[in-house]
Amino acid sequence: MHELFTVLPPGEAFATFGRGCSPVDRSEIVPLEAALGRVLAVDVPAHETLPAFARSTMDGYAVRAADTNGASEQSPAYLRLVDDVPTGVVPLRSVGPREAVRTHTGAMIPPGADAVVMVEDTNQTGDEIEVLAAVAPGEDVLVIGEDIVAGALAVPAGRRLRAADLGGLAALGVTQVTVWAQPRVAILSTGDEVVPIGAVPGPAQVRDVNATTVAAVVAQAGGIPVPCGIAPDDAAQLEAALRAARDGADAVVLSAGSSVSVRDLTAQAVARLGPPGVLVHGIAIKPGKPTVLAICSGTPVVGLPGNPASALVVAWRIVRPLVRLLAGERVDADGLGDERELSAVLDVPVPSRPGREDFRPCTLARSADGALHATPVFGASNLIFTLIRADALIAVPLDRSGLAAGETVRVIVP
Amino acid sequence: MHELFTVLPPGEAFATFGRGCSPVDRSEIVPLEAALGRVLAVDVPAHETLPAFARSTMDGYAVRAADTNGASEQSPAYLRLVDDVPTGVVPLRSVGPREAVRTHTGAMIPPGADAVVMVEDTNQTGDEIEVLAAVAPGEDVLVIGEDIVAGALAVPAGRRLRAADLGGLAALGVTQVTVWAQPRVAILSTGDEVVPIGAVPGPAQVRDVNATTVAAVVAQAGGIPVPCGIAPDDAAQLEAALRAARDGADAVVLSAGSSVSVRDLTAQAVARLGPPGVLVHGIAIKPGKPTVLAICSGTPVVGLPGNPASALVVAWRIVRPLVRLLAGERVDADGLGDERELSAVLDVPVPSRPGREDFRPCTLARSADGALHATPVFGASNLIFTLIRADALIAVPLDRSGLAAGETVRVIVP
Repeated sequence: MHELFTVLPPGEAFATFGRGCSPVDRSEIVPLEAALGRVLAVDVPAHETLPAFARSTMDGYAVRAADTNGASEQSPAYLRLVDDVPTGVVPLRSVGPREAVRTHTGAMIPPGADAVVMVEDTNQTGDEIEVLAAVAPGEDVLVIGEDIVAGALAVPAGRRLRAADLGGLAALGVTQVTVWAQPRVAILSTGDEVVPIGAVPGPAQVRDVNATTVAAVVAQAGGIPVPCGIAPDDAAQLEAALRAARDGADAVVLSAGSSVSVRDLTAQAVARLGPPGVLVHGIAIKPGKPTVLAICSGTPVVGLPGNPASALVVAWRIVRPLVRLLAGERVDADGLGDERELSAVLDVPVPSRPGREDFRPCTLARSADGALHATPVFGASNLIFTLIRADALIAVPLDRSGLAAGETVRVIVP
Repeated sequence: MHELFTVLPPGEAFATFGRGCSPVDRSEIVPLEAALGRVLAVDVPAHETLPAFARSTMDGYAVRAADTNGASEQSPAYLRLVDDVPTGVVPLRSVGPREAVRTHTGAMIPPGADAVVMVEDTNQTGDEIEVLAAVAPGEDVLVIGEDIVAGALAVPAGRRLRAADLGGLAALGVTQVTVWAQPRVAILSTGDEVVPIGAVPGPAQVRDVNATTVAAVVAQAGGIPVPCGIAPDDAAQLEAALRAARDGADAVVLSAGSSVSVRDLTAQAVARLGPPGVLVHGIAIKPGKPTVLAICSGTPVVGLPGNPASALVVAWRIVRPLVRLLAGERVDADGLGDERELSAVLDVPVPSRPGREDFRPCTLARSADGALHATPVFGASNLIFTLIRADALIAVPLDRSGLAAGETVRVIVP
């Protein structure tokens, strides 16, 4: 196959690719305490109403609000203390006219009462309560169903579960949840010059950095990295390794050399994996242009450039949203929009060439007024140690020939 | 102990507390593939120089740059092709004057050559290479040590390891790293009205939401949550439960009711755990004011409010930076400054009362121009399901009586 190199902008490339990808269709049941970061597979409705009983939100006295009408420091209302209801205790009697029951934050409101006068607005002498401020009905009372009512949607399917979501489920007594299985992502490195990281490279050889970085990106995005080793630059062996990698995987990520001959070899091997084959051959992104995106008999395949820094940038831009999509999360069509995209004020100008999305490593710092500032890191963007010195990447849009100092720019925190 | 309620702003509260906390002093050795998100305990220097050999960054011809002086389409330079060096192969001969060696992206540059002419700027006829553009010395060559030189700091101690850091370590052949042990954080709930999430609450009882949410915040911050159950509102039993929780823990987080009597009980039990005891009693934050921060015989103790939403907000604001600090990460004195703090444009005004940091649940959305917009979520901020509907929290500063529509505000993505 001759390399056509139909280069697409990254958003368009992901959209083309993502349309052919669907979430894994395997779900599993996990205990709530193991569900952090997992993606909910089904809507979870509330099967209870919360709170299940009216609760006080203050220390004070449960009263009939009408009995405090017009009360003030100058003209207090006087009520008779008839009970004290601690938290966790069911009131034994109701609150009648001109009566008050001592209540505590979180305690059940007795029948008859419809408001709480906070203790700071009262004086108590024996069983006489002097009320120094009027309260409205409902004041400082959490009413039944104020948090959620039975039948309402508690947490929606597709939600990557956060602390608050788990809290809401715990409140409802949900102790296990049905989540999507984590997508298994096979990771294959290729290249005659590549050796495992535990090996001592011979002359002209390099260690397999991409297996490590891609696995980290996959894991962070909620996938399970499946290491598949290193294949040589040989058509038959590469194809065999790709087929083995695909076996049992929900996606395959391979990294290959960036030379044209190796890219051709890779694209051909990917094309032979199954239809429709290669969808995108080249992305208008720097670093990372020589990227291949394919769907082969239903399995998404990403061919990353061999250069470790380029591979990592494309892993962030393409593999991360792919894994989130496979994991059952809602992902924007262009693959952007996760919460790790920030805005920052650029400290120095950044030159760029229009026609490609340029990712420049930068440090981030907050100024005294709280504004986030981005400063490009010295060093070539195709070196892994430039990325190590960086906190984030400045994304120079496709249509811009550079960014000006003082401009608010988009930064991506990997 | 009488409750003094010396309420401090959150930043000052964390600073007072954090000064008494030190990172865990236990380290462990983990394989590189298990090191994502762990905090490096020692500086890792490069023990090798990378790249170890000069490499081509393009497909083309390795040449002596001087031989291309003045070359152009109109007046090409002519060189003789003497070799082809694929990636992973050691060149057998050097490049002499007016000679060229075919090279490939990532391949070793032969001795004698000091630049690469990319293939697009050449024509080849037999062993004659026509060079259509001059190249400068070093052009399209990655020189020895351009990524890192032996002896330089590769990754600094205190770094929470990211994909790029692991990649740099992999490139150097570092297959295991010394990281700080993850801090063990004991989580204790208290309250006569609180039952485990698997139980059916009786009348006036509620489920223990905080054990779940606090564990999630601890885990996300890099700690190991250690569940310690529920203690009743009884001085002796609470103290015994606190002592048991502290045993083997690097920190204790308890959540207690928010009524004054229960808060007093909790503060007294914490004070008896050891000197110096309670440092902060009350934080100027909404929700979450009734928070206790203590150091007891060297162990940090956080007393959260019992209300689940309040407890979660304080867990984000105080427990998260505490865990990061204990985990060996560098944390700002005020506990802020992690990457989950964003700026957004506020869509509608938010009223607030000066004198406290007000955290308002909001949704986030990106407008067509890429700007992030924050819209407050309808519902009381002390309800857990309000937090579930939210993407983030708008932080209204202490000194502001509300925020205006259109203002750029600080939001915290938990």
